[in-house]
Amino acid sequence: MTDEQALRLHEKTPGKITVEGTVPLESQDDLEKAYTPGVAAAVDAIDADPSSVYRYTAKGRMAAVISDGSAVLGLGDVGPEAAIPVMEGKALLLQELGAVSAFPILLDETDQENLFETAKKLHPMFGFMMVEDIASPGCFRLEQELKDELDIPVMHDDQHGAAIAVLGALENALAIVEKDIEEIEVVVVGAGAAGIATGKLLDAAGVDDLWMVDRPGILTPEMDDINWAQRDIAALTNPDCREGELADAVAGADVLIGLSAPGIVSQEMVESMAEDPIVFPLANPRPEISADDARAAGAAVVGTGRSGADNQINNVLVFPGVARGLLESRATDLTTEMKLAAADALASCGEPAKGSIVPSPLNKSLHDRIAEAVADAARDEGVVHEQE
Amino acid sequence: MTDEQALRLHEKTPGKITVEGTVPLESQDDLEKAYTPGVAAAVDAIDADPSSVYRYTAKGRMAAVISDGSAVLGLGDVGPEAAIPVMEGKALLLQELGAVSAFPILLDETDQENLFETAKKLHPMFGFMMVEDIASPGCFRLEQELKDELDIPVMHDDQHGAAIAVLGALENALAIVEKDIEEIEVVVVGAGAAGIATGKLLDAAGVDDLWMVDRPGILTPEMDDINWAQRDIAALTNPDCREGELADAVAGADVLIGLSAPGIVSQEMVESMAEDPIVFPLANPRPEISADDARAAGAAVVGTGRSGADNQINNVLVFPGVARGLLESRATDLTTEMKLAAADALASCGEPAKGSIVPSPLNKSLHDRIAEAVADAARDEGVVHEQE
Repeated sequence: MTDEQALRLHEKTPGKITVEGTVPLESQDDLEKAYTPGVAAAVDAIDADPSSVYRYTAKGRMAAVISDGSAVLGLGDVGPEAAIPVMEGKALLLQELGAVSAFPILLDETDQENLFETAKKLHPMFGFMMVEDIASPGCFRLEQELKDELDIPVMHDDQHGAAIAVLGALENALAIVEKDIEEIEVVVVGAGAAGIATGKLLDAAGVDDLWMVDRPGILTPEMDDINWAQRDIAALTNPDCREGELADAVAGADVLIGLSAPGIVSQEMVESMAEDPIVFPLANPRPEISADDARAAGAAVVGTGRSGADNQINNVLVFPGVARGLLESRATDLTTEMKLAAADALASCGEPAKGSIVPSPLNKSLHDRIAEAVADAARDEGVVHEQE
Repeated sequence: MTDEQALRLHEKTPGKITVEGTVPLESQDDLEKAYTPGVAAAVDAIDADPSSVYRYTAKGRMAAVISDGSAVLGLGDVGPEAAIPVMEGKALLLQELGAVSAFPILLDETDQENLFETAKKLHPMFGFMMVEDIASPGCFRLEQELKDELDIPVMHDDQHGAAIAVLGALENALAIVEKDIEEIEVVVVGAGAAGIATGKLLDAAGVDDLWMVDRPGILTPEMDDINWAQRDIAALTNPDCREGELADAVAGADVLIGLSAPGIVSQEMVESMAEDPIVFPLANPRPEISADDARAAGAAVVGTGRSGADNQINNVLVFPGVARGLLESRATDLTTEMKLAAADALASCGEPAKGSIVPSPLNKSLHDRIAEAVADAARDEGVVHEQE
């Protein structure tokens, strides 16, 4: 695949999505049912019973893919127009893999508080809001404020798509090396949106020994030169304020998860890990350490962020199924239990006996299983809108 | 067509629109071109040359249908969720009749200034913004502010869709009665969004003798109990402050255009008009006077707002073609010249010799002709983005 081929694909339609009608419009009778005067019956019905918006409109099968283009993966702050191809890509994947309609909402807004004020007003047409590629740490507050304000689920995909994918892959990797998740020591390098959410989800999944590392070294809650979100996760994972460099954290660890910058993990570091180490250098497109170098240094299981490589741990494994599960159950929120259920469903599609910790995203039963697990968990927790 | 049939249609999918992919997603290679890593080539290209957003994304064929649901035709302030069926209907018609992709944006916002602030941030994904069913007089300022702020065209459909449809129909009605547009006296009853825009467009089309009437009677620029938009149109049409009731204005007029309230025009009023009067009682669903009563009182040509009736003068005749013309020419604005061109194109599709002043909206050549006329006018005026 060359850049030239990718550009040809993008300019063909142009773009990658289209909005189509789902009802016929051939006759005067069709026009009267879908438009005037028939549409008034649907308007009146929703006006009388607001819950019937799910019955008479596309809301219940429609996701928003919202971004300001301030933190496009691997490309940085390109702004809302240059980010369109990424968001159209997400909408395409939601449709093709998750059977969910999704529309890209690109916001020309740089102020974080205004971004929240704008995004929250968009809810009426959507049953689910997926937030994408918004810079950290503002993304955490934006997501939390939207979750608090709205009665539809909101997911910052960079956080939770990544965290669920990592946890699902880790479950299978641990099966290969026969280690228990409650016994392992894990280092997460890179305390941005994905790293922090991964740390929190691993903690919820039972990981006790967890070190978060970023530029200043192992994060401690007493550090001055880190942001509030990093300080929060440091307080959770390192209340005793153990200090050290990346190499100190990695020495003796069972698992190294990289969500940071190219080339920062050396073979010596991998060699210093516990027996049968698991290494997921996920920085994309250039990893913290190449898969070959990690294996040569003794890694027992390697997961990558690179497209086309085996064991590619990418959000696309997760968000189509999560979106469908949230919409199908008319969930009002995405909870930690639902994320853990999604990770288990992802793990159930891997084949650890064959060394495969995650399936291909083109495996459609993967998305069905995640959707079912998320919907079941939502119903079990009771975080759903009542259905007729 | 019964309400029950309309509701069955709305609950089938449910809703009336879906978002589909336009590129294949069957193989790993497809995934790499449309998503990661291939999508980065499109992002980089737009980052380097912002105009290429039209080349690599759906922006140039995508319209927004924006509303707060505060003034849904015939139904009033139902709010953004109950307004969804109307906006999905507009999106459906844009696609099926105009071959334009369109997505409904329903905003949960009641403050007019906030509505502008929110709407303006949504431009990156869209080549055209159609504003719908927003209460008057705020809608005028909202549209003007969006036009001033954005480099894509913005059209408040309730205003200009109606105005263009009325003017196109009037051109053919005048051909039937053999009167010249510059010689006629016209009364517009109902100085809301549609009435005011119609008054302005008729003025631009050459109508000299034009009376705007609303609840207080003939509007004058000195009235206290009218809004600023009504005062502006009164200053344009009635600088001499002629006063009077609706009946005074109608007496001797050649044309009566109703965009107001049911039943307010009597047969006596029609009888008091000039020879061969043209009467368009367009209030919907119940008109100012029934077509039969208007004809019995001597109306030579009658246009209606009722679905299914002959000579139905509805926005749907206009907005699909206007949207496509704006997008195809990459117009930056919708000007008066372009609206006049659209009205002429609409008129060219009627058959006045057979008494038919407007075609059916299902006549697809209608929308092609309007699109071509609008695009040509945009290019003639030079209000277009440069294309490669």
